[in-house]
Amino acid sequence: MRDRHLDAEHIAFRESVREFVRREITPYHEEWEKAGIVDRELWRKAGKQGLLGIDVDEEYGGGGVRDFRYLAAISEEIVRAGASGVGFGLHNEVVAPYLNDLATDEQKARWMPGFCSGELITAIAMTEPGAGSDLQGIRTTAVRDGDDWILNGAKTFITNGINADLVVVVARTDPEAKASKGTSLLMVERGMAGFERGRNLDKIGLKAQDTAELFFNDVRVPGNNLLGEVDKGFYHLMHNLPQERLGIAVAAVAGAEAVFEGTVEYCKTRTAFGQPIGGFQNTRFELAEMATELDIARTYLDDCIMRHVDGELDAVQASKAKWWTTDLQKRVVDRCLQLHGGYGYMMEYPVAKAFIDSRVQAIYGGTNEIMKEIIGRSLGV
Amino acid sequence: MRDRHLDAEHIAFRESVREFVRREITPYHEEWEKAGIVDRELWRKAGKQGLLGIDVDEEYGGGGVRDFRYLAAISEEIVRAGASGVGFGLHNEVVAPYLNDLATDEQKARWMPGFCSGELITAIAMTEPGAGSDLQGIRTTAVRDGDDWILNGAKTFITNGINADLVVVVARTDPEAKASKGTSLLMVERGMAGFERGRNLDKIGLKAQDTAELFFNDVRVPGNNLLGEVDKGFYHLMHNLPQERLGIAVAAVAGAEAVFEGTVEYCKTRTAFGQPIGGFQNTRFELAEMATELDIARTYLDDCIMRHVDGELDAVQASKAKWWTTDLQKRVVDRCLQLHGGYGYMMEYPVAKAFIDSRVQAIYGGTNEIMKEIIGRSLGV
Ligand SMILES: Cc1cc2nc3c(=O)[nH]c(=O)nc-3n(C[C@H](O)[C@H](O)[C@H](O)COP(=O)(O)OP(=O)(O)OC[C@H]3O[C@@H](n4cnc5c(N)ncnc54)[C@H](O)[C@@H]3O)c2cc1C
Ligand SMILES: Cc1cc2nc3c(=O)[nH]c(=O)nc-3n(C[C@H](O)[C@H](O)[C@H](O)COP(=O)(O)OP(=O)(O)OC[C@H]3O[C@@H](n4cnc5c(N)ncnc54)[C@H](O)[C@@H]3O)c2cc1C
Repeated sequence: MRDRHLDAEHIAFRESVREFVRREITPYHEEWEKAGIVDRELWRKAGKQGLLGIDVDEEYGGGGVRDFRYLAAISEEIVRAGASGVGFGLHNEVVAPYLNDLATDEQKARWMPGFCSGELITAIAMTEPGAGSDLQGIRTTAVRDGDDWILNGAKTFITNGINADLVVVVARTDPEAKASKGTSLLMVERGMAGFERGRNLDKIGLKAQDTAELFFNDVRVPGNNLLGEVDKGFYHLMHNLPQERLGIAVAAVAGAEAVFEGTVEYCKTRTAFGQPIGGFQNTRFELAEMATELDIARTYLDDCIMRHVDGELDAVQASKAKWWTTDLQKRVVDRCLQLHGGYGYMMEYPVAKAFIDSRVQAIYGGTNEIMKEIIGRSLGV
Repeated sequence: MRDRHLDAEHIAFRESVREFVRREITPYHEEWEKAGIVDRELWRKAGKQGLLGIDVDEEYGGGGVRDFRYLAAISEEIVRAGASGVGFGLHNEVVAPYLNDLATDEQKARWMPGFCSGELITAIAMTEPGAGSDLQGIRTTAVRDGDDWILNGAKTFITNGINADLVVVVARTDPEAKASKGTSLLMVERGMAGFERGRNLDKIGLKAQDTAELFFNDVRVPGNNLLGEVDKGFYHLMHNLPQERLGIAVAAVAGAEAVFEGTVEYCKTRTAFGQPIGGFQNTRFELAEMATELDIARTYLDDCIMRHVDGELDAVQASKAKWWTTDLQKRVVDRCLQLHGGYGYMMEYPVAKAFIDSRVQAIYGGTNEIMKEIIGRSLGV
């Protein structure tokens, strides 16, 4: 039932991803959590397996298939395995569309082969220490110098920040104009003089994810590293945010479902007072409410995915999916943890890991408050 | 207003505790979190300062004052500082009453001086891998052998488990009887042959707290290490659980208040869209709701404390305080974290630490479901 929106190829693909995750990710993830970063080797393996750049043109080594269901399948399998450090989603769902839609042929020829092979890891840097929700408040600037740009500023909370070889940096290019009309996207590459990484941030969860600070001190960015149109950065961002948010919703529902399934099993086997804890009416009601809401979330999500496949997902619907599913995920994880008793607080249980990993979902990609702003405004109030 | 139930001595004492925490705990806590355990030296310093065994008789080095408000003051200051690894609460609020009420003079003379000086750290071991909420399901046994007992079994989730020198162990002493009529308390000491520690458990939070597994393999416990009456262990436990639960409520309210105060400050200073984030109506409503519920919780808690000081706190009221305040703490911490945006997910912010530390409050000391069972049953339904 769940898979009504998937064809046989999607399901077969998902199986192959599951196998890849089982073989190449699960055995190493704990090690990566200790290291605070995923081994770059994994990216190359994923490239070989065809998991990077599914919707990039085949001439550049991509899959050549523009169908979000494949991206969702990758992300779901990674989430179900608790492999929260693996930043393929950011690369595939968030950065790829910028390159696909905005890069020139010359740029594609330079970056896409590495993007798809896993040699070139990407990131996108919008947020700054002083401006997150309010992106118009960013202070990073890029000033023309001949054909080049001189980039100055600081970014923070950047996913894949340490591993990234290529970073989409949002910078003000017209200091006179409002940010929405004076911002551009510049592609900053590993090794450019003045491009420095700050701390790999110490977070509540996502321990294997290298979320980092980035600093730009008079970085000379060549003119042909401008992505899209000058001063049109905000339009480009607005165009791509719905897919980013849908991707977060995919992870939210998959993550909540996985935790829920594990908890149902736990309630069948753990006993207290001479019966399985699932025998207590409170437990059954908790599970019943979660089963209902997860079913509703899954149905809505799959509908959003199909709309997106049909090119019809708008910003408002993506916002609805993002806030509601991540809020649900938080509640489901919290309730499932409670049903585990003391074991729920022990890191060896998947529900404990889900608790620390999932809390950020209501924050990044636009906070749930910002989602409600978008939806509220769409109502004309 | 908050301190209506406190006299000048309580307030002065609280100040001295605050100073102690600032000097002797805060500078070292991060180190202890990395080590997974608090330095024993702290316990000796606390002993010198008079923070251990306030209600133990003066002849044994205690404070000689039976007034829960002093214990609450210690716990509040530790919680406010985020010093979640420091297990004084377990020692002072949970174990001390067992010793005060049940130990013989000979036992007191043996243990109390160390208890108060911090040389002797205590723990209480009820929970087992297979039985937590349902304590009657425990399997640890103690069998008579002459004057001694031969103890066998495994305990888990034991606070201060690694540091403890003296452990109150709940064991079945009459295998024929129902557990409620055939259980006793045995005092197991560091170094007894067959008493072994298992893992220092890897938890979501409370990183400096040594919560551990304990194993007993044919441990010979001398007859004069029996605490209280043979086979009356359950009565002794029931008698002391209300104070343990009240102590958890104290920590819940103090912890939530501290996080809330920090968040109000944050909302005044963090800006977005040209105004402090406290300027958004949603933020103000969130804060307003939390302010209200915290006020209600504080009032109820202080009333419970005064009832307890007057010897009138019953199991049902303690259960109400425990579940409601810990549930509130969870909600307050979660909402405050959200108001911090991305920073809320960074471990350097106190709200992030509160998020991982506080989740267990609804679980230990009797789960919130068990609290509702106790309250529900008291209604005669
Ligand atoms: C693990 C992690 C990974 C991330 N990855 C990336 C990345 O790869 N690239 C990137 O650019 N960024 C990334 N971010 C940043 C993320 O997108 C921002 O944290 C988020 O957008 C919120 O911004 P902020 O942290 O500045 O919070 P703020 O904007 O300061 O918000 C603080 C609070 O105010 C509320 N608020 C703000 N405006 C309003 C309003 N108008 N009405 C009501 N409430 C409001 C917010 O909802 C929030 O509760 C990441 C963050 C994290 C934690
Ligand atoms: C950090 C930490 C410190 C601890 N410190 C100590 C300590 O110092 N000493 C000690 O002895 N123990 C300690 N504990 C153990 C703690 O008291 C138990 O974890 C708790 O009592 C729950 O027991 P359990 O884990 O076996 O959960 P279970 O009893 O297995 O419960 C599982 C789930 O079933 C629910 N449930 C159980 N019975 C019912 C019912 N009748 N109706 C409805 N729902 C029900 C529970 O509420 C829970 O949600 C600690 C635990 C932790 C995590």
